[in-house]
Amino acid sequence: MSKIASTFSRLVRFVPKSSPAKVLIGEPVDPQLDIGLAVYQGKEVSVRPFSGSSVLNPGTATGLTETIERILSPLAQSEVGSIRCIGLNYVSHAKEMSLAIPDVPTLFIKPSTALADPFPAPTVLPKITQQDGTGDYESEMVIVIGKDAKDVPESEALDYVLGYTAANDVSSRTSQMNQSQWCFSKGFDGSCPIGPVLVSAALVPDASKFQIRGLKSGRVMQDCPLTDLIFSVPQLVSFLSQGTTLPAGTIILTGTPPGVGAAKKPQEFIKAGDEFAVELLPHVGTLINKIENQ
Amino acid sequence: MSKIASTFSRLVRFVPKSSPAKVLIGEPVDPQLDIGLAVYQGKEVSVRPFSGSSVLNPGTATGLTETIERILSPLAQSEVGSIRCIGLNYVSHAKEMSLAIPDVPTLFIKPSTALADPFPAPTVLPKITQQDGTGDYESEMVIVIGKDAKDVPESEALDYVLGYTAANDVSSRTSQMNQSQWCFSKGFDGSCPIGPVLVSAALVPDASKFQIRGLKSGRVMQDCPLTDLIFSVPQLVSFLSQGTTLPAGTIILTGTPPGVGAAKKPQEFIKAGDEFAVELLPHVGTLINKIENQ
Repeated sequence: MSKIASTFSRLVRFVPKSSPAKVLIGEPVDPQLDIGLAVYQGKEVSVRPFSGSSVLNPGTATGLTETIERILSPLAQSEVGSIRCIGLNYVSHAKEMSLAIPDVPTLFIKPSTALADPFPAPTVLPKITQQDGTGDYESEMVIVIGKDAKDVPESEALDYVLGYTAANDVSSRTSQMNQSQWCFSKGFDGSCPIGPVLVSAALVPDASKFQIRGLKSGRVMQDCPLTDLIFSVPQLVSFLSQGTTLPAGTIILTGTPPGVGAAKKPQEFIKAGDEFAVELLPHVGTLINKIENQ
Repeated sequence: MSKIASTFSRLVRFVPKSSPAKVLIGEPVDPQLDIGLAVYQGKEVSVRPFSGSSVLNPGTATGLTETIERILSPLAQSEVGSIRCIGLNYVSHAKEMSLAIPDVPTLFIKPSTALADPFPAPTVLPKITQQDGTGDYESEMVIVIGKDAKDVPESEALDYVLGYTAANDVSSRTSQMNQSQWCFSKGFDGSCPIGPVLVSAALVPDASKFQIRGLKSGRVMQDCPLTDLIFSVPQLVSFLSQGTTLPAGTIILTGTPPGVGAAKKPQEFIKAGDEFAVELLPHVGTLINKIENQ
């Protein structure tokens, strides 16, 4: 086995200004640009499109240049399958919640219908969440699997990782506490925005070097280095693949650091009119969504 | 809204003897035949194929007759999306486990890679389950959604139900008890065989009339009427669709009655060489799988 050959550094999936009916993927011309932030600020973002239409099969640079009309999630709903999410996975978040460090990763699943795009796509709170008023954010780093993985040992796990992006694991706390399982309360349509770009694993040899922040309408709510992860990327990929095929395109949300709204004193939930930004640096940039009511 | 127009009574998806590379769907010629049992016993089963290749779009009878070489799950992995499963949903099972009757359904999700075919396809226990020796069965009735459902009131929920089939919610108890979430321990490849046929909702105006049995190598382990369900079919479809699109093809496993292996005294788990049969009557028949090791 060997690592996935990388033909790109950062890929964005987008609708170009030149042709609003098209979906393209490509490399931003400016290799340092935070595309999520730039689009949010109304700046022009130039991209060099690839010949393929999926980050799983990107093809090669076409030599053209396009401008972004709208950013899309790096993978489409049809590509991600069932979305894997890890529960408690930050040491400092376990301390904050007075919970023991788990021995094995806690897995729950969101349906692919939860997948959503970055700004200008909104995060829509369903009626059930509006009624209880306990919509919450969870800033997360996301692993993207690039080739089918099953029974993978930890020592080979990174060979299956195509790259990384960011996500907001949007949650409805009242529903979550009413159920011992979390798939309902975290599975509403749009409860899994990801983006703004997919960063090649070649650019990130060690995901513990990431720093993640969560900002609610500009205020920093979460800020944590990924050295704080309880289960590393190789441990997660290996564990989740035991007896289980993780098809190419599988995304794994790796848990959230301290500072979620439900843990604040006083508690601070998301409501229509707020916006939430997940910033994952270096390379990934900022995933922004405004909150709206259904 | 109105109920889904039914062009069939019972559909089987199968590979015909005439052409082992083809996948067909059709009505068994004998409307009373338990197809799962008949194929297991090596009998010839005649089917009248439809023009379509999916139970979601079956087309019409072709007037031909084919013989079954191999039964397939009524829906393909690519059609079911994320598989919805309900936890505690039988009054007598709650009593058996000394658990309170829940106020809301408990949802967990299996990935579509868990979906598997009836006999001769085996149920394969992954190494992690072999090591702990706690593989278990759960006989379940399955709801099949026929058109996209979101925010559906209970009074209209049956309009979205295409029909019913049976499933074994194959579980790994040691992994389940090690995790507060169940998606890992119930999500292994092949842990969700369904079949043998899809029965039209038109044939089953009231799913509480079903009787479900689970048989381990011929011995009855579970035997319960569906009048014992805590949450009915309309309640489940309505609840799961709140804020959440259930795409056509979604399957909902509705929980298991008393008598699982982990609750027997002494406990009685499934091992390579066993076989397990889920019988759902009337109309659905028997879903049989032999147990093998990975």
